[in-house]
Amino acid sequence: MRNIKVAAAQLGPIQRADTRQAAVARMLDLMRQAEGCDLIVYPELALTTFFPRWYWEDRTEADIWFESEMPSAATRPLFEEAKRAAIAMSFGYAERTPDGRHFNTSILVDKEGVIVGKYRKVHLPGHDQFDPKRSHQHLEKRYFEPGDLGFPAWPLLGGVFGMCICNDRRWPETFRVLGLQGVEMVVLGFNTPSVNAQNSGEGPAKRMFHHKLSLQAGAYQNSTWVVAVAKCGVEDGHHCMAGSVIINPDGEVVAETTTENDELLVHDCDLDATRFGKETVFDFARHRRIEHYGLIAMQTGVVLPKA
Amino acid sequence: MRNIKVAAAQLGPIQRADTRQAAVARMLDLMRQAEGCDLIVYPELALTTFFPRWYWEDRTEADIWFESEMPSAATRPLFEEAKRAAIAMSFGYAERTPDGRHFNTSILVDKEGVIVGKYRKVHLPGHDQFDPKRSHQHLEKRYFEPGDLGFPAWPLLGGVFGMCICNDRRWPETFRVLGLQGVEMVVLGFNTPSVNAQNSGEGPAKRMFHHKLSLQAGAYQNSTWVVAVAKCGVEDGHHCMAGSVIINPDGEVVAETTTENDELLVHDCDLDATRFGKETVFDFARHRRIEHYGLIAMQTGVVLPKA
Repeated sequence: MRNIKVAAAQLGPIQRADTRQAAVARMLDLMRQAEGCDLIVYPELALTTFFPRWYWEDRTEADIWFESEMPSAATRPLFEEAKRAAIAMSFGYAERTPDGRHFNTSILVDKEGVIVGKYRKVHLPGHDQFDPKRSHQHLEKRYFEPGDLGFPAWPLLGGVFGMCICNDRRWPETFRVLGLQGVEMVVLGFNTPSVNAQNSGEGPAKRMFHHKLSLQAGAYQNSTWVVAVAKCGVEDGHHCMAGSVIINPDGEVVAETTTENDELLVHDCDLDATRFGKETVFDFARHRRIEHYGLIAMQTGVVLPKA
Repeated sequence: MRNIKVAAAQLGPIQRADTRQAAVARMLDLMRQAEGCDLIVYPELALTTFFPRWYWEDRTEADIWFESEMPSAATRPLFEEAKRAAIAMSFGYAERTPDGRHFNTSILVDKEGVIVGKYRKVHLPGHDQFDPKRSHQHLEKRYFEPGDLGFPAWPLLGGVFGMCICNDRRWPETFRVLGLQGVEMVVLGFNTPSVNAQNSGEGPAKRMFHHKLSLQAGAYQNSTWVVAVAKCGVEDGHHCMAGSVIINPDGEVVAETTTENDELLVHDCDLDATRFGKETVFDFARHRRIEHYGLIAMQTGVVLPKA
């Protein structure tokens, strides 16, 4: 048994008018509720509203949503409280680098309050120009560039941890690259509109189904725990779904939030529960046949077979 | 609309004492029930019992379960009836090549009765030596070599078709390589023991969950139809699960068998239903980032991150 006690710290909506300080105060409140846990996981873009729903013709106007240092003055209390409580943490934020690049980023912080891992979202959904045909904008491709750090895994809390962010979860490549590093727990945050902007017939039930399906398959097929945390509820008039979940290495949902507000979900996760799958049906060394996987890493889009 | 009418032709058990002719007679009966369909899909190893559950020290003794030609005398009536009924078909069998190689194979046959595609199972589960610790043997790695044809896709019936076999469905690489060829329908057969041979606590409910989870994720994440067909029931004292299903490109089960016997499942599948997913969330050309997928095709087993 290598039990770690994990807290999934779901956030309700953060309005456009809300300050970083207000968001951090809510995160601190959840951290205090998580006293005694080993790890607390917050959502994607945890410090602000989901700003990619807004269009600015001059994209530098969006820079106000980005952090140019981490910790910053506003987020330092989180690091200090995490260190005091000896709890590791992960949260997402918009990152602006010193040389002016923009990423949708998450970090992994150890129990000493030290950043030990950084991930930059690889699979940016949406579009980069204003699209009048959509029911709402989703301009991640406008405000971020795709992550340049790959999908690293890190030793932490006696286990192997990986991160991804939101739309990354729909891509089996995400989980497989982590799985090939022996990942035992994948943590991620998400902001997922409850209606498909390009198909109003795809509502909350189907969106929730796709969300869980992707996470559960990623967990099962790599025999890893998955902790997925929502920012949800009605943000600036736009509804995002909840569905924060903790999933075991068998792909089963073992805990799920019940509200669309700030809510803490706590579960004891035995990292040794990942072993059976990794040693049997998903013993990659024995079963994978990389000689037939070449297209996956060589070819980006579809090439139809010859008639 | 590009509707094709598909029949999933589940087979109940085939006992060790049963002849090829008896199996083919049952397959012909199902084909007659499928009159008017465009395609009929039979299970893996449709002509015989699931012989890899038996151990022969001299592996050539297993050669009696293999076909050295296709069509053979025993299977020719299937091809003739398919041509008469103008129905395409797919079924699995154990293949012995003229140079003595052994594969777990399936074929795709057009409405003229011509073999237009062949697939050889890539992901062989189980083991190659007798294992006294298991509740039952699963010696696919003893009697077959891994497929050498990759995961091809073929134009057929106005769409793009792919095949895989049983355990292949648990590997997202299978569906992704097909997805990168624009696959619109993946057909497969399976023989899945309803208890895990290495963990008696993993019974039918969890096995069925993993089965559907893998298929549904493969369908959704590649926006393709999936037709999965069981050989099931109690075969030579060993129980295999049913759960033949047809899954739409949204990952939803739209049809499922209700027995563990010979049973035909018919569904009208609109291949154009694959388009929305392929053009939006799973528009690979726009969203995939192959620069971060290298490990998938370069590294077979797990390499842990450095501490």
